[in-house]
Amino acid sequence: MSGQLTAEPPIRTVADRTTRLRADLTTAGLDAMLVTGTAGKRYLAGFVLHRGEEWTSGFSGALVVTRDRQILLADARYTEQAEAQAPEWDVRRTRKGIGIELAAIFKAESIRRCGAEAVVLSYADWVGIQHASPATELVPFDEPLRVMRIVKDPAEQAAIARACALTDACFDHLLVTVRPPMTEREISWEIEAWFRSHGAEALAFEPGVLVGARASMPHGHPSDAALHLGEALLLDFGCQVDGYRSDMTRTIFAGEPSDEARHMYEVVRSAQEAAYAALAMGTTGTAVDAAARAVIADAGLGEAFSHGLGHGIGLETHEEPRLLTWDRPLEAGMVFTLEPGVYIPGRIGIRIEDDVLLTPDGPQRLTRSSRDIIVI
Amino acid sequence: MSGQLTAEPPIRTVADRTTRLRADLTTAGLDAMLVTGTAGKRYLAGFVLHRGEEWTSGFSGALVVTRDRQILLADARYTEQAEAQAPEWDVRRTRKGIGIELAAIFKAESIRRCGAEAVVLSYADWVGIQHASPATELVPFDEPLRVMRIVKDPAEQAAIARACALTDACFDHLLVTVRPPMTEREISWEIEAWFRSHGAEALAFEPGVLVGARASMPHGHPSDAALHLGEALLLDFGCQVDGYRSDMTRTIFAGEPSDEARHMYEVVRSAQEAAYAALAMGTTGTAVDAAARAVIADAGLGEAFSHGLGHGIGLETHEEPRLLTWDRPLEAGMVFTLEPGVYIPGRIGIRIEDDVLLTPDGPQRLTRSSRDIIVI
Repeated sequence: MSGQLTAEPPIRTVADRTTRLRADLTTAGLDAMLVTGTAGKRYLAGFVLHRGEEWTSGFSGALVVTRDRQILLADARYTEQAEAQAPEWDVRRTRKGIGIELAAIFKAESIRRCGAEAVVLSYADWVGIQHASPATELVPFDEPLRVMRIVKDPAEQAAIARACALTDACFDHLLVTVRPPMTEREISWEIEAWFRSHGAEALAFEPGVLVGARASMPHGHPSDAALHLGEALLLDFGCQVDGYRSDMTRTIFAGEPSDEARHMYEVVRSAQEAAYAALAMGTTGTAVDAAARAVIADAGLGEAFSHGLGHGIGLETHEEPRLLTWDRPLEAGMVFTLEPGVYIPGRIGIRIEDDVLLTPDGPQRLTRSSRDIIVI
Repeated sequence: MSGQLTAEPPIRTVADRTTRLRADLTTAGLDAMLVTGTAGKRYLAGFVLHRGEEWTSGFSGALVVTRDRQILLADARYTEQAEAQAPEWDVRRTRKGIGIELAAIFKAESIRRCGAEAVVLSYADWVGIQHASPATELVPFDEPLRVMRIVKDPAEQAAIARACALTDACFDHLLVTVRPPMTEREISWEIEAWFRSHGAEALAFEPGVLVGARASMPHGHPSDAALHLGEALLLDFGCQVDGYRSDMTRTIFAGEPSDEARHMYEVVRSAQEAAYAALAMGTTGTAVDAAARAVIADAGLGEAFSHGLGHGIGLETHEEPRLLTWDRPLEAGMVFTLEPGVYIPGRIGIRIEDDVLLTPDGPQRLTRSSRDIIVI
């Protein structure tokens, strides 16, 4: 059951997450942790914030987890919500600015070393908080929460599966609505409008919609370029349901694909199949990445696969494990993408991406749209 | 013409902005500035990024402005776009991570002291860049770019005016579509869908749509609460056009308002009129805020006006000048909101907000929707 990440204490309930964090604090010799990222606040306290409510200088609240207290600091606009969503937390209204409020807590709780999210807090905020509390040392402490979030519990898996099912349904909708000469921007809006009117609380990210040769830019943005007959259409999209996200890519064709496009498509599909077949508890991410990469290299397209095979997904679109560099064993409960692709600049780009849950019995696709060549 | 902010050299073209920044660097004894915020990159270089493309560890590029060079560093996904949008910049492709790339530039250009955006860069990024370049001192230098952006040139004013006109048109649409028992979420989606299908490139912010007593939360988020007959509906919304934003609030009524609601509405409207009447070049923001506040206090509702009168708006929704604390003279070319409000917790909230341009001839409303009591 265990594996490298599953140290005691086990996580079965939301409250267990804070217990685990306290164990990590003890290990690191810290007295407390300050949590300011949106994902961490939702994960630990059930405190739900929306896009645009990310932490900026205390705007939308912060958690302070000490050895024996769990405090949620929020300004007047958020305390009512916080009390409803996080009943087991000591909700306190900030009145004097986050630096001063934290200084009072650090003093009252005798916090000498406090972990904080160095990739979330701005330099200005970090320095401001540290300046207001000279007797407390702020210590970068990003990893434990991120590591804890890698293995999803059943409720998290179910939320991701709901987001994936909605993504499959959106793809079905696109197959009957997308036709030449729609533009990338029009198709992107079609995706967003469908998601928002069918139960998604947000997009997981701005959809990648790229026609023809433009699909060779792995992160291109929707433009006014129109889909023409004979072109490929790359669709990279996902949504958010109950805080959890999906991320799927399909490459479809307006009219019959050329022999070259058909060949490249089959190579990419075979690469994804090979990665899926290699998936098992205990296998490393790098081994799974290599399995896909070997198929593409054998087809003489190795140079054209210019990014990693996949990434974890959950409260954020890009999480660990990043398969290319994840040289530890994969564990049951991890959810990640498998997204091999080949890109010939100025000519074509093909990618196929699914979200996959690793279970004790093997992998399970959460996005289930057809991976056959589809001609619209 | 001049005023406190308009130091030489004058800004007439986009290129003048970089010239002005160089003057600020000289004044501050800095050899260069590193610009990583989305607004700054667009303002100085015309380099356009979308939501979700904010700077995270070099992802979407950075500017380095030295005394005699202007370099745009971007990874492979962005260099093509950067070359097209910023032809006068030296576009370089990052290959080795931003810290190493910057270290090479700092060394080649003999940069000993480099300004950077402390409120934009994460603590981890700041420390990482500083660590890779021990001979260069990174110095927090947020203000000059922010101050430079306060006075809008004619092209910027025109873009904001376009966003405001679209916002007025959206309000017209809402008046004929919003009816009880629509929910806050449905109305919010109506706003977003209308903007996106009528030329806005994005929302300026998640719309604030609050029914009845819920409008007493100045920053509440749309819920499944439905609009009932006899209730007020607060609509706070805006969009983005060509990078520039609008922000308007109207409070309308489903059925005839009560005498209390009618009275409060008239107080808020009078307060906004008083602020508008007080606006002139050379007047301070605090004086304008006080003019509105006096009207509300005279009506015995002083405690119920719990926020500042308004804020600057442009590439970001909230910019300087924040009128409550802006004790310097207002200048021609500044664009800001006038948004008095009164909030009685659990009962009612009323706010009226317009975007206003200050011209040499006085103020000019850019949002022009009716401020009369509107019953739907």
